[in-house]
Amino acid sequence: MPDGNSAWTRMAQDNAVIRFIDINLRGAGQVIFQDNPLTGFFFLAAIVWGAYVAGQPAIAIGAIVALVVATVTAMLLDVDEPSLRQGLFGFNGVLVGAAVPTFLAVNGWMWFLLIVGAAVSTVVMLAVSNVMKTWGAPALTFPFVLTTWFLVLAAYSFGHLPIASMGPPALPHQAAAVAPELSGANWQLIEAWLKGPAQVFLINNAVSGVLVVIGLLVSSAWAALFALIGSAVAIGLSFGLGASLASIEGGLYGFSPVLTAVGLGCVFYKPSWRVALFALLGTVFTVIVQGALDATVAPLGIPTFTAPFVFVTWLFLLPKAKLQPHPHAPIANGVVSGDTPPASAAGAHPTSEGRP
Amino acid sequence: MPDGNSAWTRMAQDNAVIRFIDINLRGAGQVIFQDNPLTGFFFLAAIVWGAYVAGQPAIAIGAIVALVVATVTAMLLDVDEPSLRQGLFGFNGVLVGAAVPTFLAVNGWMWFLLIVGAAVSTVVMLAVSNVMKTWGAPALTFPFVLTTWFLVLAAYSFGHLPIASMGPPALPHQAAAVAPELSGANWQLIEAWLKGPAQVFLINNAVSGVLVVIGLLVSSAWAALFALIGSAVAIGLSFGLGASLASIEGGLYGFSPVLTAVGLGCVFYKPSWRVALFALLGTVFTVIVQGALDATVAPLGIPTFTAPFVFVTWLFLLPKAKLQPHPHAPIANGVVSGDTPPASAAGAHPTSEGRP
Amino acid sequence: MPDGNSAWTRMAQDNAVIRFIDINLRGAGQVIFQDNPLTGFFFLAAIVWGAYVAGQPAIAIGAIVALVVATVTAMLLDVDEPSLRQGLFGFNGVLVGAAVPTFLAVNGWMWFLLIVGAAVSTVVMLAVSNVMKTWGAPALTFPFVLTTWFLVLAAYSFGHLPIASMGPPALPHQAAAVAPELSGANWQLIEAWLKGPAQVFLINNAVSGVLVVIGLLVSSAWAALFALIGSAVAIGLSFGLGASLASIEGGLYGFSPVLTAVGLGCVFYKPSWRVALFALLGTVFTVIVQGALDATVAPLGIPTFTAPFVFVTWLFLLPKAKLQPHPHAPIANGVVSGDTPPASAAGAHPTSEGRP
Repeated sequence: MPDGNSAWTRMAQDNAVIRFIDINLRGAGQVIFQDNPLTGFFFLAAIVWGAYVAGQPAIAIGAIVALVVATVTAMLLDVDEPSLRQGLFGFNGVLVGAAVPTFLAVNGWMWFLLIVGAAVSTVVMLAVSNVMKTWGAPALTFPFVLTTWFLVLAAYSFGHLPIASMGPPALPHQAAAVAPELSGANWQLIEAWLKGPAQVFLINNAVSGVLVVIGLLVSSAWAALFALIGSAVAIGLSFGLGASLASIEGGLYGFSPVLTAVGLGCVFYKPSWRVALFALLGTVFTVIVQGALDATVAPLGIPTFTAPFVFVTWLFLLPKAKLQPHPHAPIANGVVSGDTPPASAAGAHPTSEGRP
Repeated sequence: MPDGNSAWTRMAQDNAVIRFIDINLRGAGQVIFQDNPLTGFFFLAAIVWGAYVAGQPAIAIGAIVALVVATVTAMLLDVDEPSLRQGLFGFNGVLVGAAVPTFLAVNGWMWFLLIVGAAVSTVVMLAVSNVMKTWGAPALTFPFVLTTWFLVLAAYSFGHLPIASMGPPALPHQAAAVAPELSGANWQLIEAWLKGPAQVFLINNAVSGVLVVIGLLVSSAWAALFALIGSAVAIGLSFGLGASLASIEGGLYGFSPVLTAVGLGCVFYKPSWRVALFALLGTVFTVIVQGALDATVAPLGIPTFTAPFVFVTWLFLLPKAKLQPHPHAPIANGVVSGDTPPASAAGAHPTSEGRP
Repeated sequence: MPDGNSAWTRMAQDNAVIRFIDINLRGAGQVIFQDNPLTGFFFLAAIVWGAYVAGQPAIAIGAIVALVVATVTAMLLDVDEPSLRQGLFGFNGVLVGAAVPTFLAVNGWMWFLLIVGAAVSTVVMLAVSNVMKTWGAPALTFPFVLTTWFLVLAAYSFGHLPIASMGPPALPHQAAAVAPELSGANWQLIEAWLKGPAQVFLINNAVSGVLVVIGLLVSSAWAALFALIGSAVAIGLSFGLGASLASIEGGLYGFSPVLTAVGLGCVFYKPSWRVALFALLGTVFTVIVQGALDATVAPLGIPTFTAPFVFVTWLFLLPKAKLQPHPHAPIANGVVSGDTPPASAAGAHPTSEGRP
C-alpha cells in the first residue's frame, strides 16, 4: 500500500491493537474510496468537528461506535482477510453511525438501533458485493443507504424512536419558479462548495469539508481535485436549474456529485480526457437524480442519503468495458485489475469468498 | 423423503390422482419450507379454520383454488419435475389465494383476478428463481409478494374490484410515544405469540397458529422451535420499541420474523450456536424492517405481505458462503447440496431448467 | 436483414451519411422491436403527425434530436457495431425525446434536460443490457423508463423546469364503482383501439396509431396482428374491470399491452398456439399491472411510461427456457439464436462487449 506511512503500516502488521485501529481508520477512508488510515483520520476529524460545532456529540460517538461494530461483525463473520484489512467493511458502518443520531432523537433504543444497524450493514455489504460482482461492479455505499433507510423508516412505526430532524412526509409539489438569489455573494458560494464534501458524512460544516479535502489530498491529488470539481458542478447546475437555495447552501446538492466525480473520474476508471467527459456527464446526471430522488422520498419523510451517487455510478460503471480504448476481454470477477490508481486499488469492492 | 408417511408416498408414486393431491399438499407445506404433505394438510386446516371462524369462506376456497391453479400452470409450462413434486410451484399460489379475498370484496372479477394471479405466480416463481439462483439463493415468497402487490394495487384503479379491508392510503406519521399496555395480561401475550405463525397465511387466529406449529412439528422439530422463537422475539422487540398494540396483538409483527427464524435458523443453514446468533440478528432486523415497510407502503394503502422476511432473508443468505467454518469452495448453482436438513432439502428453490 | 429494401441497405453500406440515417431510422423502429428503417420512418411520421395535430412541435423535434443524440453517444462510447447498426441505441432516446416535452414546459433548461437524458439513455441501455443478459433477457424500454422517471421527477425540485401536464401528486383512492358507458358507441371504441399503438410513442391520436400499425405491417405481419390484439384485449379487459373511461378512450390502458403482446407473441418466442396462450396471459396481466402502477406512481405525480410492459415481459421472458418443448440446453449469453423471426433478430438486445 503506497500510502506514505510505512512506519505505521509496519506497526499495524506487528501489533494486533494497532492493526485493529488501522483497519478502522481505513474503513473511514473508504467512504470516499481511499485505502489510507491517515485519510480516515481526517474524515473522522471532520465528523468530530461537525458534531462538536453542532452540539451533537452523539453523531461523533455514533459514527465511531458503528465503525467498530461493523468491523468486529466482519471479523466474527470470518470475511475475506484482504478486504477486511482495506477497510471495506467499515465505511458503511461509519455512515450508519453518523446518520442515525442525526435524524433520530438520542435515547437507549436509538443506540440499540444504531448497533444492530451497524452489524447488519456488514451483512448487507457482503450481500450487495456478492450480487454486484456478477457485473464487476462494487457495492459502493448502497449497504449504508439501504440499511439506514430501513432504520429511519422504522421510526415512523415505533413510538420509542422519536424523530429528531426528518420529514414530515409530504407529497412533492413543483418548486417555485422564482430565481433564487445568493445573499452575501461569493463567501456563501464558497461555503456551499466546501460543505459538499462534508455532507458525504452528513456534516453541515465548511471546516469539516476542508478536513475531508485534506484527507483526500494526503492519499490522492486526483481524488481531491475531482471532489472539488464535483461539488462545483453541483452548485452551478442546481443553481441554474432553480433548486431550493437552502438546500444548495447546505451542500445538499453536492455530496452525491462529489462521490460520483471521484468514483468515475479517478477510482474506477483511469483519469483521461475521455474519462473526464464521461465523469462530467455522470456528475451532471447525479445532480438531476438528486432532485428526482428528493421528490421520490418526500412522501416517506426520509433523506435520500447517497442513493443518487450509488444509482448513477452503478449505471455508469456497468458498461465500463467499453471505456478503455480496446478492451475486448471480458471483465474478470471483481474490479478490473491493474486499471485503477494504486491507493484505491480494490475500490470499495470486497472479494467476499477469499479466492484470489 | 423421510417425511414419515411412506405408505402415502408409495401411493403417490403409483396413482396420478394421489400424486396430484400430494403435490398440492406439499405446495402448502412449502410456505414454511416443509416438503411434507402432512404439514401441508395442517397448514390448509389452519387456513380453513381461520376462514370459518372469521365467516369468510372465500379465503379458504381461494387458497385451495389458487394452489391448484398455480400447480396446474406449472404442469402446463412443463417445469422441472423434481421441483414440481416437492411443491415448489404451489406455495406462492396458496398465499395469493388467501390474500386476494382477504383484502378485496368477493365478486366475479375478484375470482378472475385471483385465478390470473395464481397462474402468474408460477411464471413469477420461475422468473425469480432463475434470477436468484445466480447467487445460490431461493425465490422465497417473493413471487407471492410481487404478484399480490400488483393484484391489490390494481383495485385502486378498477371500479369493479371494491376494496374490502385495506388502506386507505395515508402518509406515514410518527407513532405516539406512549408506552402501550397489555390488558388482560399474559393470555393476550400468548395469543399474540400463536397468531404470528398463523399470520404467515394471513389468518388472525391463535388456534390456526397452533395448527401451523403442529404442522411444522410433524416435519421438523427445529422448524417448530424456530417458528415459536421468531414469534416471541417479534413480540418482545416490537413491544419494547413501542409499536402499535393492535398490530402486536394481531400477530402482524410476528409472521415475517417466524419465517426468517425458520429459514435462517434451520433451513438454509445447519443449526449451530453460530448460526443461531446470525439468525437472531436477522430476526431482530426483520422486526425493524417490518416497521420500516409498514411506513413505506402506507401511502399506497397496501399490506407489506411477507416482504420483510424476503428482503432480510435474502440479505442474510447472499453472504452465506462465509458462515460455514472453512468453505472456500464456490456455492454450486442452487442450494448448497448436503448442508440442509433432509425434510427441506431443496428449500423453496426450484431448478427450473431440469438439469441435475 | 430481409427488410425488403435492399437498394437502401446497399446505399447504407456504401455511404456514411445514409448509414447514419439508416441507423437512426432503425432506432425508431426498435421501439416495437423492428430492425427496419421503413418501419422507423412510419413511427417517426406517427410522432410528427401527432405533435402537429396537438400543436406541440417540440415533441416531434425532441424525439428526433434525442434519437440522434442517443445514437451519437453510442458511437462516442465505441459500442458493439452490430448492435449499433440494428438501432439498439436509438429506441430509448426517441422515447425520452418524445416524453420530456410532453410533460414539461418548453424552455432552455428543458432542452438541456432532454439532451442530457438522451445521452444518459445510451449509458443506461448498456448498463441494463449487461445486467439482463445474465439471464438471456433484453433491456426492453427500461432505459427509457428509468431515465425519464429521473428527468420528470427532477422537475418537482427545480423551479426552472415547470411542469406542463403531469400530476399533481395525490394518494390513490378507490375508483368509483359505477360502470362506465361508452358514448358515441363503436367509433369511440375503434378510436381507443387505434390509440393504443400510438400511445407507445406517447401520442394521443388514432391516425398516428394507424401509421404505427402500417409501420409494423411493412416489417412483420405477425407484429401488426399482435399489436392490434394487444390493444383490443386491453380495451375489453380495462372496460370490464371498470377502469376510468377517459383513460381507456385515450389509449392509456393499451400501449403496454401492445408491446407485451408483440414481444411475447412473436419476437422473443416463436408464434404457436402454446406461445399465443402464454402471451395472452402476459397481456392480461399487463392490463392489471397498468392499473397497479397507475396507483403506485400517483403519490409522485409521474406517468408509468412503459413500465407495465417492461416488468411483465421480463417476468414472462425469464423462465423462457421452458416454453420450447424440449430445450434442456442452457440459454446462450444474449438472445436465443435462431428462435426468433428474422426481422427482429437480435430483438432489443445489444451485445455490448463486441464478442460474437
